[in-house]
Amino acid sequence: MKRYRLSVAYDGTDFCGWGVQPQMRTVQGVMGEACNKIFNEVGDVTAAGRTDSGVHAAGQTVHLDCETSIKAQNMAYRLNAVLPDDVVVESVKIVEDDFHARFHCLAKQYVYRLANGKVPPLFDRSTVAWEQRPLDLHPMREAAKYIEGEHDFKAFMNVGREMESTVRKILRFNVKRRQGQLIFSILGTGFLYNQVRVMVGTMIDIGLGKIPALMIKDILQSRDRKNAGVTVEAKGLSLQKTIYAGDPSEKMLPQ
Amino acid sequence: MKRYRLSVAYDGTDFCGWGVQPQMRTVQGVMGEACNKIFNEVGDVTAAGRTDSGVHAAGQTVHLDCETSIKAQNMAYRLNAVLPDDVVVESVKIVEDDFHARFHCLAKQYVYRLANGKVPPLFDRSTVAWEQRPLDLHPMREAAKYIEGEHDFKAFMNVGREMESTVRKILRFNVKRRQGQLIFSILGTGFLYNQVRVMVGTMIDIGLGKIPALMIKDILQSRDRKNAGVTVEAKGLSLQKTIYAGDPSEKMLPQ
Repeated sequence: MKRYRLSVAYDGTDFCGWGVQPQMRTVQGVMGEACNKIFNEVGDVTAAGRTDSGVHAAGQTVHLDCETSIKAQNMAYRLNAVLPDDVVVESVKIVEDDFHARFHCLAKQYVYRLANGKVPPLFDRSTVAWEQRPLDLHPMREAAKYIEGEHDFKAFMNVGREMESTVRKILRFNVKRRQGQLIFSILGTGFLYNQVRVMVGTMIDIGLGKIPALMIKDILQSRDRKNAGVTVEAKGLSLQKTIYAGDPSEKMLPQ
Repeated sequence: MKRYRLSVAYDGTDFCGWGVQPQMRTVQGVMGEACNKIFNEVGDVTAAGRTDSGVHAAGQTVHLDCETSIKAQNMAYRLNAVLPDDVVVESVKIVEDDFHARFHCLAKQYVYRLANGKVPPLFDRSTVAWEQRPLDLHPMREAAKYIEGEHDFKAFMNVGREMESTVRKILRFNVKRRQGQLIFSILGTGFLYNQVRVMVGTMIDIGLGKIPALMIKDILQSRDRKNAGVTVEAKGLSLQKTIYAGDPSEKMLPQ
């Protein structure tokens, strides 16, 4: 048995999220089936981040153990040949037996895409949410700076998963406008349940001028979910990068 | 009754092409239904180019006559509210009564997108075809130059529509590589049935080194469909631009 590290992307539209659930189509389930078709003795397929229903991944990292005569450089090709067209394995390499996709992940970058104009998104409508009302970039950028750092994010968490602590560290929160879309990029060492989607929902209130940017600080301090914005729809969200020690992307992390 | 000019985009995946056919879901049919819901006395919906089944449009132009109290600047919004999510009206304006989307169109630009790498396309898999084998850009670019100009394109036409003449004029044929994709852009005053898809199929043979670039000249001269390449799949093709006198895009045309 060897341990393999896979870089995986998927369109979350038709998946009930990453984690296996009975009777549901999940990415973990589909990947397990594909692996069982071509390898012997496949262990559990473990991901850096268990994305929710409808959430996409451009840069998910996965590890699994298997016994196979197929060379690592041919495994992506073999897996893609049996996987459905909404999951793609981009690369595979052999790693140390103790590599763990989840526990060794230093940071994750999520991206939320929001078309902001009068015309709805078309070709990318599966991966881009839509807000018709004009959003002002400036206060959203100000608010994003208040979110950066280590805070108790309880106000931005939906109930759903048990958590020992609601303190998390956001390393970077950028907001930019590009070709009629707002792109929210959030780099953090860990995230609470629905945290990114609640933060983006709150950002929208700020961009609309419903609340001032500075109020983010009060919302954080209140630790009360009622004070934050709505949970924006899943389809705009993508797990963009998962970062490990020694990866080229490690340079994205603050020194 | 006033005549309106609409700029329309659609994802062709779930359409049997532009033109109305009984029992089939067509863009013309869906647009006609949407117009009938919100306007009175709508005439035929006429497009610059009648795209085939599975072909997309980013810049289709349409005209229609109707009697309505809705202002032109609000029509796109009203139409998008009743159209399905795979058709989007980008803008609407009132034009002269004799404006004709098809007959007044000076030129059309088609774009064919082909992912060219070991990993299949994912998020854009509905609009990008895939060729795993490495394609050499240089001879394809050479061949594209031989295609430019006025030629008898009978060898690049599939049987299907009656044509008086098979002579057409290609104003520009560019091929570039961008982020792992080959982008074929073809600007012409008119196209034969499946012409772009047969030309791209022949380009792939050239990019693979199966035939030399110069052979394009022999294929043109032969006027024999058997000598050209396969008809590549529809999903990579998009009607990108439709150009009229006085439009800003008119400057794309050679002087």
